Amino acid sequence: MATVENRQVVLERYIEGVPKVTDMAMKIGKIELKAPKGSGAFLVKNLYLSCDPYMRGRMRDFHGSYIPPFVPSQPIEGFGVGKVLDSDNPDFKPGDFISGITGWEEYSLIHNTSQLRKIQPDDAIPLSYHLGLLGFTAYVGFYEICSPKKGEYVFVSAASGAVGQLVGQLAKLHGCYVVGSAGSRQKVDLLKNKLGFDEAFNYKEEADLDAALKRYFPEGIDIYFDNVGGEILDAALLNMRIHGRIAVCGMVSLHSISDPKGIHNLYCVVPKRIKMQGFLQSDYLDKFPEFLEHVTKNFKEGKIVYIEDMNNGLESGPAAFVGLFSGQNIGKQVICVARD
Amino acid sequence: MATVENRQVVLERYIEGVPKVTDMAMKIGKIELKAPKGSGAFLVKNLYLSCDPYMRGRMRDFHGSYIPPFVPSQPIEGFGVGKVLDSDNPDFKPGDFISGITGWEEYSLIHNTSQLRKIQPDDAIPLSYHLGLLGFTAYVGFYEICSPKKGEYVFVSAASGAVGQLVGQLAKLHGCYVVGSAGSRQKVDLLKNKLGFDEAFNYKEEADLDAALKRYFPEGIDIYFDNVGGEILDAALLNMRIHGRIAVCGMVSLHSISDPKGIHNLYCVVPKRIKMQGFLQSDYLDKFPEFLEHVTKNFKEGKIVYIEDMNNGLESGPAAFVGLFSGQNIGKQVICVARD
Repeated sequence: MATVENRQVVLERYIEGVPKVTDMAMKIGKIELKAPKGSGAFLVKNLYLSCDPYMRGRMRDFHGSYIPPFVPSQPIEGFGVGKVLDSDNPDFKPGDFISGITGWEEYSLIHNTSQLRKIQPDDAIPLSYHLGLLGFTAYVGFYEICSPKKGEYVFVSAASGAVGQLVGQLAKLHGCYVVGSAGSRQKVDLLKNKLGFDEAFNYKEEADLDAALKRYFPEGIDIYFDNVGGEILDAALLNMRIHGRIAVCGMVSLHSISDPKGIHNLYCVVPKRIKMQGFLQSDYLDKFPEFLEHVTKNFKEGKIVYIEDMNNGLESGPAAFVGLFSGQNIGKQVICVARD
Repeated sequence: MATVENRQVVLERYIEGVPKVTDMAMKIGKIELKAPKGSGAFLVKNLYLSCDPYMRGRMRDFHGSYIPPFVPSQPIEGFGVGKVLDSDNPDFKPGDFISGITGWEEYSLIHNTSQLRKIQPDDAIPLSYHLGLLGFTAYVGFYEICSPKKGEYVFVSAASGAVGQLVGQLAKLHGCYVVGSAGSRQKVDLLKNKLGFDEAFNYKEEADLDAALKRYFPEGIDIYFDNVGGEILDAALLNMRIHGRIAVCGMVSLHSISDPKGIHNLYCVVPKRIKMQGFLQSDYLDKFPEFLEHVTKNFKEGKIVYIEDMNNGLESGPAAFVGLFSGQNIGKQVICVARD
């Protein structure tokens, strides 16, 4: 088998605060396009990589989290879609498409198959859409954490993002009234005109977030799907209805960097009997088949729209990842490493 | 029937911030010791009154809460135990003892019987113990919100207070490891030597609450019963275990007055999948008989200790109530208006 160049995005050093492009570097390694005999591994050509905010957590020198940190000067890792080129694992054969944790590099030798899935190619579903584990986050958070009822009032922050766009659409399909917030007029247009939200607003244009929520939710909010934390969470707490539910999703951790003000309205959880719950999709993997069927079916019937922000080339990865933290992306941020 | 003097504690004015003794005043009214024919009401001689932090919420000019504000120059109201002197309600007869919402005054004419209960006198249970609706708060919060399992690590703040003392004892009876925090050495002694907590500490002597919790919970906290909010909540968030539960009880609202720093560690709810839930006992009234049986039985068997801080005389009410907010009370704060 040939030994080829393998371009990689490596972590330069552990970070604090918001990631910068210079925290990562391009490196050219070499790789033999072969899975060593007896390794049980397989060699994958990476096609699409997912840019997700949680990855910042792995850029810190902190070992107490649910997932270990990246190793400096080694490729960073993330969710990806790839094609098997060679395999020493009988369950994965050359030509198979897979999704799961892979390296930010052209080729990866994969040993750990614990959360890896084989993809059945389907002309109606682009390969890159299988990066949609975050769609699963939306599904789990909305159905398992929020216990939605038809007719309820749902608020989604970062609503045009990877998770938010699906939460809003699932809520609409469930018969809820849905309002989203986002950080630009273009995103607000998208929410209202393409993603079917009942209303949407640009939080950057609102001097008083509490007043904005009172305008959009005169009856209050039953379900708040929180993708941002910080001031929007604080305003939402003031506007929750009795027995309201707040699903707290990954990005809240980012606000802890940039928002030193803290949360002040948590006392609202008592008189309003609010349930606030953090979650990770990985606790609900038994629901994955149900999710895939539900979302795929609705997507094929045109009832769910999926918006990707696709950057081309591995070298576009660092900027695309960093862009997440200033809301550069519209829809799910994806890197195309190779088409096939 | 005689018309007699009726001493009352009235609200002087709506307040902001922490209540002061001067926000209330003693007033002498007159009352006919008779329930008017056709009123459906009954006349009660108030014996014991409960001092509860939630009452502060009714001293503000705010009508959006779950309970309306007090009326200035009218007696404040709270949970009490009384004896029926005269009645136009066939369900309540002279000589009956009752518990429920009554006025802070010597005699009250009661129309609203919605949360009112008749007490069966029992030599083994002092009458004032029936003010223990907050014991019910402990019961509901611990069993319904925290879903405790044997062997779990439980942390209780304001642990020698009305709610905390019972939460800790219920947790011990359930087979949990229980640590409480309180604001004086005397309270800490009480927790360890009388209430059966495994450990207890004085939060005022801890420069670093995070470090204190790590010392008492090297394995982390499964259940935090939060009676205070603020910095202790922030430190607890850092020390919760995966799938931890936080029951948020009334007093958190007080910290919103005195703690302008806000909560900063809420991001922990995501990787740790924490459930944080506010609650009110009034949502769980169907559990009241079960609570009464469980707690009464354990009390009679000497397995539950109940600590009251009893002040004598209606005129001691304002200072006792205000004292709650600086931790003056040890155990449940009660006012004895009359013995019988």
